[in-house]
Amino acid sequence: MPTTEALSPTLALAFELIRRPSVTPDDLGCQVLMIERLERLGFHVERLPFGDVENFWATRGHHGPMLAFAGHTDVVPSGPHLHWDHPPFEPCIDDQGMLCGRGAADMKGSLAAMLTAVERFVTAHPDHHGKIGFLITSDEEGPAVDGTRAVVEHLREAHERLDYCIVGEPSSTARLGDVIKNGRRGSLGGVLHIKGVQGHVAYPHLARNPIHQAIPALDALVREHWDAGNAFFPATSFQVSNIRAGTGATNVIPGDVEVVFNFRFSTEVTHEQLKQRTEALLDAHGLEYHLDWTLNGEPFLTAEGELVDAALRGVEDVLGHRPELSTSGGTSDGRFIATLGSQVVELGPLNATIHKVNERVRAADLDDLSRVYEAILARLFVNGTAQP
Amino acid sequence: MPTTEALSPTLALAFELIRRPSVTPDDLGCQVLMIERLERLGFHVERLPFGDVENFWATRGHHGPMLAFAGHTDVVPSGPHLHWDHPPFEPCIDDQGMLCGRGAADMKGSLAAMLTAVERFVTAHPDHHGKIGFLITSDEEGPAVDGTRAVVEHLREAHERLDYCIVGEPSSTARLGDVIKNGRRGSLGGVLHIKGVQGHVAYPHLARNPIHQAIPALDALVREHWDAGNAFFPATSFQVSNIRAGTGATNVIPGDVEVVFNFRFSTEVTHEQLKQRTEALLDAHGLEYHLDWTLNGEPFLTAEGELVDAALRGVEDVLGHRPELSTSGGTSDGRFIATLGSQVVELGPLNATIHKVNERVRAADLDDLSRVYEAILARLFVNGTAQP
Repeated sequence: MPTTEALSPTLALAFELIRRPSVTPDDLGCQVLMIERLERLGFHVERLPFGDVENFWATRGHHGPMLAFAGHTDVVPSGPHLHWDHPPFEPCIDDQGMLCGRGAADMKGSLAAMLTAVERFVTAHPDHHGKIGFLITSDEEGPAVDGTRAVVEHLREAHERLDYCIVGEPSSTARLGDVIKNGRRGSLGGVLHIKGVQGHVAYPHLARNPIHQAIPALDALVREHWDAGNAFFPATSFQVSNIRAGTGATNVIPGDVEVVFNFRFSTEVTHEQLKQRTEALLDAHGLEYHLDWTLNGEPFLTAEGELVDAALRGVEDVLGHRPELSTSGGTSDGRFIATLGSQVVELGPLNATIHKVNERVRAADLDDLSRVYEAILARLFVNGTAQP
Repeated sequence: MPTTEALSPTLALAFELIRRPSVTPDDLGCQVLMIERLERLGFHVERLPFGDVENFWATRGHHGPMLAFAGHTDVVPSGPHLHWDHPPFEPCIDDQGMLCGRGAADMKGSLAAMLTAVERFVTAHPDHHGKIGFLITSDEEGPAVDGTRAVVEHLREAHERLDYCIVGEPSSTARLGDVIKNGRRGSLGGVLHIKGVQGHVAYPHLARNPIHQAIPALDALVREHWDAGNAFFPATSFQVSNIRAGTGATNVIPGDVEVVFNFRFSTEVTHEQLKQRTEALLDAHGLEYHLDWTLNGEPFLTAEGELVDAALRGVEDVLGHRPELSTSGGTSDGRFIATLGSQVVELGPLNATIHKVNERVRAADLDDLSRVYEAILARLFVNGTAQP
């Protein structure tokens, strides 16, 4: 195993970050490590703790459009260390050339790549056009209330302009840079309680079976064509994740049924429309029900523009292949940043092992990713594709 | 409170039976009490223990048709005695004239009424036409495997003819003798597992949601017209009692769904037909499923004949009103006895408090019930309505 001294600057920093077991919402000094290096580069750093979550916002430059790098220092729990081939918080590069450790892919590797990319860029272009920002939180994997969401509100109140944002989430699937996420679907959850009248199965006329009442309504919801999607989004999808009714007794008609469902929705429909249409369908079936909604995230989309263009070309410059644009997958902090009107893309390493035991990423990919980030900076701020 | 000496013979015997806390499958001497008195009347008694269940079969007479009284000495648990106005196993007659105690209505009161009815009848008609039987078990409220079901198999092997049977289950609803059950629906249970493919709600194309697959099939089962019933039975009814799917996580499409359902079916359809039609419907929906069936009881019906006639008239003779015939409600041991080709009716006290705290029955009703049973004996074996 190489000593830290023998590692590239990106991998050395990734090692230092992974050594800190910063399980959400703990940061355990990861941000201080980044802040010290950014201040050395001339960044102005604003620490923005909210609740028990550490956040910071750092900027360099005074003119032109802002490109911010966004990411999180927190990681999901490792589970029992016994299940890992290498201890999860003792980073190493294995004999396959993989950087192993919790956070290697999600997303301490990206944080290291962003920072070294900016170090090289600023050293080469101390008077660069445009502004560079870092928006870093220690709660992306948790409730995500006091993290990026809160920092974004702070920036909104401060009238901070955030033209472009690269989120370091692991977007790649088979090889580095094969996929750039240029948006995400919205996520809307519902918990539906349908009320019936409990009774004995031998006397159904004295009861009202809520399962029987629920079935035609659920059938209608499953069959409903919510939208057709568009060029960037698949059609809006409705999925029931949980259904539960009955006491376990085989001769009792239950008094109610609980149905938990989730919409992943495109930009062709709003969450208000989905709520309205769902409730209209339930009402049309004459149900007595209670429905609690949770909006987990609005959809966002960066269809085209300078950032997508620079990201596509940046990957091509360094890796020689053109990424695919995609809006699939779960939600990310991009949903919050997009509300500032920013162009947002997610670009990071392979996501095959995230949230699993033996999380790992090709060590060489992190060096390449750093060069891709640097190439995007160059595309926007040196070659002048950024709009003034 | 009257002393036992001041009680009628029926109530005195009911007191003695209730004092024995014979919770299923315990008999605690109830049957010995009955056997001693039956042997004194000249009954031949065969004790038929199976497993931990006490049963006996007693007969008197050698010629003509057999009328058997059937019942059980076991009772359901009382629950905490604190919840009772009077201790459940210390019988008393309260100031409303109600006999109170566990088993007062279900069915130690009926056992006492049967026995005293037969005592009076045999004393008055020592050389009565026909044969009188008693089929008594200590497991009707439990698994009911080693009780009446086992005794019936024994009688079948012995080629015992059992023409008529009165089961002492509490059939009355508002006043004594207002309802005679002349049959019961069948009960067929199913536990259905529908298999899907688990996945993330954000990637429904990689999963197969078993809830979504189940819904149209369940809709078809609920809508299915199984039969129209007939003059004695309501239409066959299908009820889902339990449905369960999902891990609790809101973002996971579950791998399977469990559906527990029950048919209460008329004599217009067989359980084989119900199974076949259910499986055909599931197959038509292209489901991958596993289905376990449990036949809890075949339907039985004593549409008309000497026993129903004698029971209707016996009630009218003693109480002055004509009972209604009904096949509603849960199952009873009548389902096993009917398989011998017997005419079977259930006739007993009010069922308002059975299986509840403060189980009770009008004390005077038990004396009346004893007279009704005696009148039925007279109708069949003295007035000669019984077929030789």
